[in-house]
Amino acid sequence: MFLFSPQAQQLRSLLNPKKLSSFIHTHKHNRMAAAIPAAAQDAQNREAFRQAVVNTLERRLFYIPSFKIYRGVAGLFDYGPPGCAVKANVLAFWRQHFVLEENMLEVDCPSVTPEIVLKASGHVDKFTDLMVKDEKTGTCYRADHLLKDFCKEKLERDANLTEEKGAEYRHILAVLDDLSPEQLGAKIKEYGITAPDTKNPLSDPYPFNLMFQTSIGPSGLIPGYMRPETAQGIFVNFKDLYYYNGSKLPFAAAQIGQAFRNEISPRQGLLRVREFTLAEIEHFVDPEDKSHPKFSEVASLEFLMFPREDQVSGQSARKIVIGEAVAEGIVNNETLGYFIGRVYLFLTQLGIDKDRLRFRQHLANEMAHYAADCWDAEIESSYGWIECVGIADRSAYDLRAHMDKSGVALVAHEKYAEPKEVEKLVITPIKKELGLAFKGKQKMVVEALEAMGEKEAMEMKAALESKGEVDFRVCTLEKDVTIKMNMLTISKEKKKEHQRVFIPSVIEPSFGIGRIIYCLYEHSFYTRPGRDGDEQLNVFRFPPLVAPIKCTVFPLVQNQQYEEIAKLIAKSLTAVGISYKIDITGTSIGKRYARTDELGVPLAITVDSTTSVTIRERDSKKQIRVSIEEVSSVVKEVTEGLSTWNDVLWKYPTHSS
Amino acid sequence: MFLFSPQAQQLRSLLNPKKLSSFIHTHKHNRMAAAIPAAAQDAQNREAFRQAVVNTLERRLFYIPSFKIYRGVAGLFDYGPPGCAVKANVLAFWRQHFVLEENMLEVDCPSVTPEIVLKASGHVDKFTDLMVKDEKTGTCYRADHLLKDFCKEKLERDANLTEEKGAEYRHILAVLDDLSPEQLGAKIKEYGITAPDTKNPLSDPYPFNLMFQTSIGPSGLIPGYMRPETAQGIFVNFKDLYYYNGSKLPFAAAQIGQAFRNEISPRQGLLRVREFTLAEIEHFVDPEDKSHPKFSEVASLEFLMFPREDQVSGQSARKIVIGEAVAEGIVNNETLGYFIGRVYLFLTQLGIDKDRLRFRQHLANEMAHYAADCWDAEIESSYGWIECVGIADRSAYDLRAHMDKSGVALVAHEKYAEPKEVEKLVITPIKKELGLAFKGKQKMVVEALEAMGEKEAMEMKAALESKGEVDFRVCTLEKDVTIKMNMLTISKEKKKEHQRVFIPSVIEPSFGIGRIIYCLYEHSFYTRPGRDGDEQLNVFRFPPLVAPIKCTVFPLVQNQQYEEIAKLIAKSLTAVGISYKIDITGTSIGKRYARTDELGVPLAITVDSTTSVTIRERDSKKQIRVSIEEVSSVVKEVTEGLSTWNDVLWKYPTHSS
Repeated sequence: MFLFSPQAQQLRSLLNPKKLSSFIHTHKHNRMAAAIPAAAQDAQNREAFRQAVVNTLERRLFYIPSFKIYRGVAGLFDYGPPGCAVKANVLAFWRQHFVLEENMLEVDCPSVTPEIVLKASGHVDKFTDLMVKDEKTGTCYRADHLLKDFCKEKLERDANLTEEKGAEYRHILAVLDDLSPEQLGAKIKEYGITAPDTKNPLSDPYPFNLMFQTSIGPSGLIPGYMRPETAQGIFVNFKDLYYYNGSKLPFAAAQIGQAFRNEISPRQGLLRVREFTLAEIEHFVDPEDKSHPKFSEVASLEFLMFPREDQVSGQSARKIVIGEAVAEGIVNNETLGYFIGRVYLFLTQLGIDKDRLRFRQHLANEMAHYAADCWDAEIESSYGWIECVGIADRSAYDLRAHMDKSGVALVAHEKYAEPKEVEKLVITPIKKELGLAFKGKQKMVVEALEAMGEKEAMEMKAALESKGEVDFRVCTLEKDVTIKMNMLTISKEKKKEHQRVFIPSVIEPSFGIGRIIYCLYEHSFYTRPGRDGDEQLNVFRFPPLVAPIKCTVFPLVQNQQYEEIAKLIAKSLTAVGISYKIDITGTSIGKRYARTDELGVPLAITVDSTTSVTIRERDSKKQIRVSIEEVSSVVKEVTEGLSTWNDVLWKYPTHSS
Repeated sequence: MFLFSPQAQQLRSLLNPKKLSSFIHTHKHNRMAAAIPAAAQDAQNREAFRQAVVNTLERRLFYIPSFKIYRGVAGLFDYGPPGCAVKANVLAFWRQHFVLEENMLEVDCPSVTPEIVLKASGHVDKFTDLMVKDEKTGTCYRADHLLKDFCKEKLERDANLTEEKGAEYRHILAVLDDLSPEQLGAKIKEYGITAPDTKNPLSDPYPFNLMFQTSIGPSGLIPGYMRPETAQGIFVNFKDLYYYNGSKLPFAAAQIGQAFRNEISPRQGLLRVREFTLAEIEHFVDPEDKSHPKFSEVASLEFLMFPREDQVSGQSARKIVIGEAVAEGIVNNETLGYFIGRVYLFLTQLGIDKDRLRFRQHLANEMAHYAADCWDAEIESSYGWIECVGIADRSAYDLRAHMDKSGVALVAHEKYAEPKEVEKLVITPIKKELGLAFKGKQKMVVEALEAMGEKEAMEMKAALESKGEVDFRVCTLEKDVTIKMNMLTISKEKKKEHQRVFIPSVIEPSFGIGRIIYCLYEHSFYTRPGRDGDEQLNVFRFPPLVAPIKCTVFPLVQNQQYEEIAKLIAKSLTAVGISYKIDITGTSIGKRYARTDELGVPLAITVDSTTSVTIRERDSKKQIRVSIEEVSSVVKEVTEGLSTWNDVLWKYPTHSS
């Protein structure tokens, strides 16, 4: 379950502002800077940097607002040709790095999901955001967004802000995610917040379910939803997958696919969208053994971590060796630690800046009650720190939920070498007595008694034997009842067992692919002066792994001989599986280089003779000369990581233009 | 637009039955055979073969009925681990064979689509099937299914069928797709067809829209649908894509993604599902030049084609050289012919049997009115001939529809070398006279006059000059009106034009990926006797390109040394990007081979010493001995098609077990 709640994190980063210099490449000094508060200046710098990135991305069709000719729909985006290629590359690397490397079982389930599945998972009842309506026009807003915007505006723009008020707004921002509908509504009233577009009064906040609803089949009798995550498709298949794996734990299943969330009012461009690609892993383990055989392979990695205690005590993220974090109990177990390490390698190999990547542990109040531990890979962008990967130990919660709802056993077995004699707790409620005592409510009392753990039951037994009666909390009745000696027996019996039967724990790394890609765009973007020194040229420094096209082919001048050679080279590139773009326009070579730098193409081949060509590297702008026969194999070597650019710089003569 | 109407084709194949022997591998002679009609015997053989394939597919998790623990939902299937790998391989090859080879512009658009887009495309109004309801229970059925089942049942099972009645049922099956709701309803009444489950009477047939409907955003004011095809996402982006391609034609855009159809009553297992993967290409060309520069590369291919004329005259599909089909005008143009050839290569390289693949031209009544020509790649399966790829020249229809609805020009430009003097038709209605003559209706008359083509207009001019008035059909009024001399002027004016502006034609190859994969399963499946001769073992003869796992690694006996070597080999396979499965169970080697044959794994590595291992090929069962150092590179060579199995059989010593 990928939580996607970036507001909180983003705000936390505003409260503890990090250095922002890395955002500022193209932004010129703002004359007003001295007159406005520092936070607003930061926000302006971020905004200017983001505009430069987004303009380039839209102009070069990395993405396109969907259905643009019909004025689009908020929160829906197309990937255009280079964006689509980047996405395919990221997903192919994900498959290589996780699925193939760990021999995971990949599945591919439909998005259309019947209600019962999402009822079991809790989405039908709880997957909501709080909404307020403009009381006159009916326009909907997210309640927390309005309150957040109000507080931020005050903090950033109000020069007369008292210290007391400032502290109040900062406090609201920090606890925003924990406010109840009533608390949110009260604050909106107190501050006199109105509808942003009309200034009309607003309704009280109420929950809106974020799933797209539909109906399966023609009768209208099967309600369904577009899945809000891919994980449930794996959980419902646990039984078959466990059998497929030879009835052995641990194993992992994985799924890449579309997920859907009907956001109330999508903002933040590509970060908060209504349809997106998730890549999720469910790693099933024995809850009594969460060690990982390959943990040693990542144990010495050191990177920015932000444990719960450090957040609470107001410190910043710090570099920790993951092996030590597990040894010291900061990270709950080896398997969780292993995946944190693998996620770090995945993101940094894609090109995410390791100094702007941190693993933040969920605070106690953020974490689901069943979760053992949870860490988010957060990437710093112009929007703040963004949750891009969630890595959670969700214990047995999901399998148990589906087991309860479906009645199908979603369990694993561990055969004992020889049968074991075990003491088993036996709780036998005396239904007649309970019926007399709790008329009409005895069912809830019986269920609560039977659900007692060993410790609680033995304590009750002792209390009953000494005092004859005992108070007992029945959660479903929301009160204590008095249990007497004659209402139940509690004993321990010895049994021979041949196997242990248990619900596996699941450790879930869940990747928001679109968010990772957007952050990658920001981390890869830079500008440099053009030849004439006046204009700034845009470059994406994608590693070849990610680059949408691996190389371009340019005849230096328009001439049939050169064009024939360009086509020959194109053919040999296709043969070795390298994507390329050929540009035979008469545009100056400098302009053609600039165009492909803007697409992040790592290598450019220029045909300037009939026997050899030059290859230019994007970031260093250095060139080498290679024979026509060799060119495709050199490009393949460098783009597939078999050689580095420095290796080939040594091997081939350099060329200066 | 992938039409997915397999009923008609399937029935056509029943009318002209093909040899069925290829279906029968495991089916034992049926004692009843002599007593039942031949068509029923064929149907039984097909059914038995299909059961053998489907049982294997389900048992080995190639696919899983979705949400099985909740009793599933008709028409929704998961791909389990091997099915998911096959799908990924088919899509990777599709990208290589089409997108990379032709430098297509790939896009990736959301599935959630606002109504206006699908209103423009015609789906909101016309994407329907005819439905009847059980009048008591409300259960829904497809009207054509019920009539089809009735006729088939009569033809196959009724021993007393008269020749006349037989001809009647066969005629109905042949024209089923063309029947109006009224005709369908009349036949259902005439034959006394009732609800299959209850025998209750049925309602009259009425249209049911097959799109999953939803609502975008919280207000409920933006109706939306899950897209029924991926093509529209490309059409609405034409303007940007054309610009991205340097404002040059031809170019192609491509998209792989999910599509959704809320089938009334899904049948035929994996062939008719409610959510599926489409891969679609939209190749935009100048309508005046549909030649293709690479046509010569496919022109000499010869394969089964089934032109319109041959179908009408009752002949069978025959082998035709595609170059000749284009030269003789059987196929409308080179670009369409080029894609037909490329589709043939794609399907046969995946492992589709070329003798059970045919390209069937749409009959005049099947084809949309705007289409210039349309061919379906049909694959013969146990369900009959199945439409798996549609290859259509859709003319300018789709771009024009979106241009009309959005008001955005979706056009291409061709600059003339020097300005051209052109004669342009100028029609000038005299609105005052028209208003007097057609009070309140003059707008329709004006529009109809302005829409006249050159020929019609010049004929009207001549008629007006000779007779003074003329009858003129106004379609929007559904009647003829009388046009007089004073109501308009028609003239030709000379103008200088610098460029030609036109709406491109689109040639669309559209692939139903799930259908192709299912047919591939049937074409790849065979059985052979096991060692003891009694049991039949299942094998999928997938080419390495398709195989879900490229090789298995087996220690011959359970022993730590061999297991260490197996792990070493596993690591070297991962390093070269080869997917493998390791099996260290103590099961006999014969059983382990059988298990992986059933998954279609081409090569099995058996560790039987500490220096060298054997590699066994799945279909020949031949083995070679290779050193541990070389094994991963040999496997890579063979599975990536750089060497054949015969090549390595020559190179390495054979091993007999």
